Amino acid sequence: MHTVFQPGTADHGTTREGAATTRVAVAGATGYTGQELLRLLSRHPAVTLTAAMSSGTTASARRLPALARVWNGAITPLSAETLEREADVVFLALPDSAAAELAPKLVAAGVRVVDLSGAFRLRDGAERGRWYPETHDVPASLAYGLTERERDAVRGAALVANPGCYPTAAILALWPLAPHLADVVIDAKSGVSGAGKTPSERTHFSECHGSLSAYGVFSHRHAVEIEQELGVEVTFVPHLLPIDRGILETIYATVRAGVTEADVTAAYHGAYASSRFVRLTGRDLPEIKHVAHTNFCDIGWRLQDRRRQLVIVACIDNLVKGAAGQAVQNFNVAFGLDEDAGLN
Amino acid sequence: MHTVFQPGTADHGTTREGAATTRVAVAGATGYTGQELLRLLSRHPAVTLTAAMSSGTTASARRLPALARVWNGAITPLSAETLEREADVVFLALPDSAAAELAPKLVAAGVRVVDLSGAFRLRDGAERGRWYPETHDVPASLAYGLTERERDAVRGAALVANPGCYPTAAILALWPLAPHLADVVIDAKSGVSGAGKTPSERTHFSECHGSLSAYGVFSHRHAVEIEQELGVEVTFVPHLLPIDRGILETIYATVRAGVTEADVTAAYHGAYASSRFVRLTGRDLPEIKHVAHTNFCDIGWRLQDRRRQLVIVACIDNLVKGAAGQAVQNFNVAFGLDEDAGLN
Amino acid sequence: MHTVFQPGTADHGTTREGAATTRVAVAGATGYTGQELLRLLSRHPAVTLTAAMSSGTTASARRLPALARVWNGAITPLSAETLEREADVVFLALPDSAAAELAPKLVAAGVRVVDLSGAFRLRDGAERGRWYPETHDVPASLAYGLTERERDAVRGAALVANPGCYPTAAILALWPLAPHLADVVIDAKSGVSGAGKTPSERTHFSECHGSLSAYGVFSHRHAVEIEQELGVEVTFVPHLLPIDRGILETIYATVRAGVTEADVTAAYHGAYASSRFVRLTGRDLPEIKHVAHTNFCDIGWRLQDRRRQLVIVACIDNLVKGAAGQAVQNFNVAFGLDEDAGLN
Amino acid sequence: MHTVFQPGTADHGTTREGAATTRVAVAGATGYTGQELLRLLSRHPAVTLTAAMSSGTTASARRLPALARVWNGAITPLSAETLEREADVVFLALPDSAAAELAPKLVAAGVRVVDLSGAFRLRDGAERGRWYPETHDVPASLAYGLTERERDAVRGAALVANPGCYPTAAILALWPLAPHLADVVIDAKSGVSGAGKTPSERTHFSECHGSLSAYGVFSHRHAVEIEQELGVEVTFVPHLLPIDRGILETIYATVRAGVTEADVTAAYHGAYASSRFVRLTGRDLPEIKHVAHTNFCDIGWRLQDRRRQLVIVACIDNLVKGAAGQAVQNFNVAFGLDEDAGLN
Repeated sequence: MHTVFQPGTADHGTTREGAATTRVAVAGATGYTGQELLRLLSRHPAVTLTAAMSSGTTASARRLPALARVWNGAITPLSAETLEREADVVFLALPDSAAAELAPKLVAAGVRVVDLSGAFRLRDGAERGRWYPETHDVPASLAYGLTERERDAVRGAALVANPGCYPTAAILALWPLAPHLADVVIDAKSGVSGAGKTPSERTHFSECHGSLSAYGVFSHRHAVEIEQELGVEVTFVPHLLPIDRGILETIYATVRAGVTEADVTAAYHGAYASSRFVRLTGRDLPEIKHVAHTNFCDIGWRLQDRRRQLVIVACIDNLVKGAAGQAVQNFNVAFGLDEDAGLN
Repeated sequence: MHTVFQPGTADHGTTREGAATTRVAVAGATGYTGQELLRLLSRHPAVTLTAAMSSGTTASARRLPALARVWNGAITPLSAETLEREADVVFLALPDSAAAELAPKLVAAGVRVVDLSGAFRLRDGAERGRWYPETHDVPASLAYGLTERERDAVRGAALVANPGCYPTAAILALWPLAPHLADVVIDAKSGVSGAGKTPSERTHFSECHGSLSAYGVFSHRHAVEIEQELGVEVTFVPHLLPIDRGILETIYATVRAGVTEADVTAAYHGAYASSRFVRLTGRDLPEIKHVAHTNFCDIGWRLQDRRRQLVIVACIDNLVKGAAGQAVQNFNVAFGLDEDAGLN
Repeated sequence: MHTVFQPGTADHGTTREGAATTRVAVAGATGYTGQELLRLLSRHPAVTLTAAMSSGTTASARRLPALARVWNGAITPLSAETLEREADVVFLALPDSAAAELAPKLVAAGVRVVDLSGAFRLRDGAERGRWYPETHDVPASLAYGLTERERDAVRGAALVANPGCYPTAAILALWPLAPHLADVVIDAKSGVSGAGKTPSERTHFSECHGSLSAYGVFSHRHAVEIEQELGVEVTFVPHLLPIDRGILETIYATVRAGVTEADVTAAYHGAYASSRFVRLTGRDLPEIKHVAHTNFCDIGWRLQDRRRQLVIVACIDNLVKGAAGQAVQNFNVAFGLDEDAGLN
Repeated sequence: MHTVFQPGTADHGTTREGAATTRVAVAGATGYTGQELLRLLSRHPAVTLTAAMSSGTTASARRLPALARVWNGAITPLSAETLEREADVVFLALPDSAAAELAPKLVAAGVRVVDLSGAFRLRDGAERGRWYPETHDVPASLAYGLTERERDAVRGAALVANPGCYPTAAILALWPLAPHLADVVIDAKSGVSGAGKTPSERTHFSECHGSLSAYGVFSHRHAVEIEQELGVEVTFVPHLLPIDRGILETIYATVRAGVTEADVTAAYHGAYASSRFVRLTGRDLPEIKHVAHTNFCDIGWRLQDRRRQLVIVACIDNLVKGAAGQAVQNFNVAFGLDEDAGLN
């Protein structure tokens, strides 16, 4: 049986001000998401960063010049034993297969896990087997960590499956309105850092610069994740944008008869009244520039009454709210901290 | 009464090989579209470029360093009299209001006109009055110059209204399929050169770089132009992409029951069998990089049978096929030349 | 007579933890530097941000969507009286002429000033009159705020003239070595945000994207500032780089006979042993990416012994270490705070 | 013995107008330089493109969507026999080692070669052995193909070694002035396409975008090539610029006493009076944007008399004048064609 964890019970260090801190480790520290985690956690007031590990063979602090004096620890080889011994919570920024294997072990050893891979995002066994065949053992105490919607689940979960970057923006934009909508089309555009740090022809500078391309039409697993959370089918087409970081999704839907723009506005404000990281911009549509390097999700919308056509625009930074930032936000919720601790 | 022009009747110069050439002038030569026209026309084998004019007060050849040795003529102040005297055909790359005033004069003087402004694109008087109130006098011998669809009309027209950049890609992608489709959504992304050469906060480098934004939702006049040509309402949202040139449009539609991907493919191949500048890429979706600096429109598509959901991706270079290149293509058709003369 | 200020004497508020805070205002809050100041100061633990003013007529919080929930105050019209009444220290991110007029007034009223304009950077009256003719009244208690070199002067100054962005990188890279060097050439490259927020042809997106240009050859006032601080003439050529933020300077010099790479290394380590924000990368040359959005100045170098040719590369973020970050660093020093307060 | 070739003797096809054409092949057709060669040669009026080969295993026309309808031939596996049989001249856009092996074979078989690799650029055996150890057999009839300076040599050579991209701009900027100069520093910045099409960490989009870095300090073989041609030592530092194509070099030198800016101007105009592809911009310094996608080299300069400090700025498109365009220019000269044939 997996324990139901209680928030705030970890107590293994102290902040400068003398408050308790939590021992935190990052597994997969040299990728873009891992580096962002180190950046956020190294300045988090309630965290003692005890280990940063990499599964790569040549990992070393020399490879992270951007983090010199931000985080001065060494990158060490991945070791489940060390993680179990030295961390109360581990952030996994590993490939799906490595996360699928490591997360259950850590949970079984009583270590809480925030997993940034896709290994545990899908609840339906058949779908998971199709899209993440490397996932075999799913801990029972599991939450899907779209923080704004799942605070209670996150609070008590041994394993938090951090949402995908595209799903984060799409679900935040759609779930408050879901009962009002039909015919949902999500046209998503992402910066190239979303494709990770491994070089490829698709992410080669000269192939992306000055260009734009669609990919994964009708075959992207983030579509399945979005549909799981919304309970409706959607059309989802991602695009590779010639920028480093940031996602903008333009979402099209038909509203049920009688729904007005004021209804849409009210639904959003109701859903996010107490959510510090969702900024509702109304008819002023958001831009990637405004959310880059932040944990915000900005959402704007316009409704054309005559045709009942709704257009929503949602923006996040894919490495922050779409990955490392939301992971820290989930950690904060799970450990009873201020939800924005370390995220300002 | 306006004359119906006959192709190939102009005969005022000769090429190096001794063939007849046409006297051509550009009005509005210093903007991005105007410069592209100079670049194309200066190497066109059947053209003698007799004048390049600008309505700006400080216009001079010094302002066009990119064109040194490409085109060595002087930029002169705009003069309708000179145009009438020295040109058989005038390309107008002027603001809407200047084109609205100048085009009818030139046509009345027997000069053929390819107008790259929006002044004469809308046929319906009420719509035109709403979106282009500066247009008062519309010549009778007028063609909407989407070349691939309107060759016959272009051939005999005194005035060719060159299509807008967004409509060019959208209509080429949609008209062959129009009878099969419903619920059309056009998510369009354009490079910043589409906004012209006049500095503004929106097109300031630091506002665009690393960002993406939607604009003109439910209020862009290109939507009206697309709807005019397709005969159906569409949802159209343009975005400002952090690149210089190129448009990619991702188009979503529902196909009528029974329509298969093979039907879509057949419709496209039927429509464009003899169109050199439309490249059909099928299930391999096109990218902006492949059409930049060319007159091609690349179109790819995928159909999800179960949900009858069609996704089409169309790409053009907004300054070439979306403006100057298509204008030259229309000129070629109008004067009985090879359709690709000067465009390779 | 101008007072010599004592650090840490201001005491007009409290932090969450109960410590004293300083009342701080920003004049010129809507430009890129002003926004960066708001971002840094709003999360500074020892600051109470009492006013953010703009001299523009249409200034409003709506114009700063990136700062929503980061700083929720209103942008108000520029008022010297309010600044004198409500602030212990004012950061001026104004045009030179406005700063030249306002700074002496504030100092006379006993308000300390960190001026990010160029108005007070040049000490020599003749040079200042040539490059900054709008500066008439220069407070006596003045420090040139290159923090790493001028901590003592900054501590006691009523007015800190924050260095220019190019000079910050150049002087940090050169002053520890100045006695060893001759024939200094500084090839400087800056992101476009260094040119400010006002649109212009030079900073129009389509003019910069995919391009690079040199400007201000033999006529840039930052060269004069660099020469003032180093005491030698330099050749300085700035370039406009197609990125938003960041400066990289490649510096060429001949070393005196007998100087080795080890000597260079020792000089740097001696100069910056206690400087948290200077990272010495040795033979691994720094990149803009590693300093973007930070207050670091990264410096690397290589010496070719045979020809006594030294190449130094220095990088900063022009809006942080090159402007707002160094201004906050100077504030920290001036008020006896940790030098990195609010800058992590 | 190697034949001394005569221009214009090849005669194996006809243009549309009935003129003789030359049978041309490209070996290494799928890289960026190879694609640019196909683009240029496919529209060259005096060329019949008989083969395009790739040494890669998966080469196919499908991999070159940008060239559909520009060049419709198939990419075939590399075959020396086929090249010897079907081509009068072969352009080699291969890795150094492949070119080092293939070029002598082709020359021995009486096929003329324009080699775009570095294998044959260095004349000194010791230097060549150090920088290009894979080069063993150097044909006697060899020219270094900086066209503007070497027309006579190119005309009679069996093998033209096309210059490197950085050397092209540097030598064009410096050789007319060489007797007047000392202390030459070349600060060179190149778009990422100069690094080729093979993905790597250094050319990964997210590593380059928004950044700038120096590399190859005191260890770049292009420095050796520049020094060979100029006969003086230079300091050369290349940088990786976040653009796709284009090189800008800022060159610093001291002029001999008494040399004026007018002398510099006269030297340039004397050297390039009959060179169509060198544009002298004088005190208006050139920008990459003006030469992108062209075969021009733009050169501007300013001299500070008092310090005898000369600053020169030279720009080229690295894939055109820095590679494929200059190769075609050399071909034109070698075969007695107009020097700009196919390059407008």
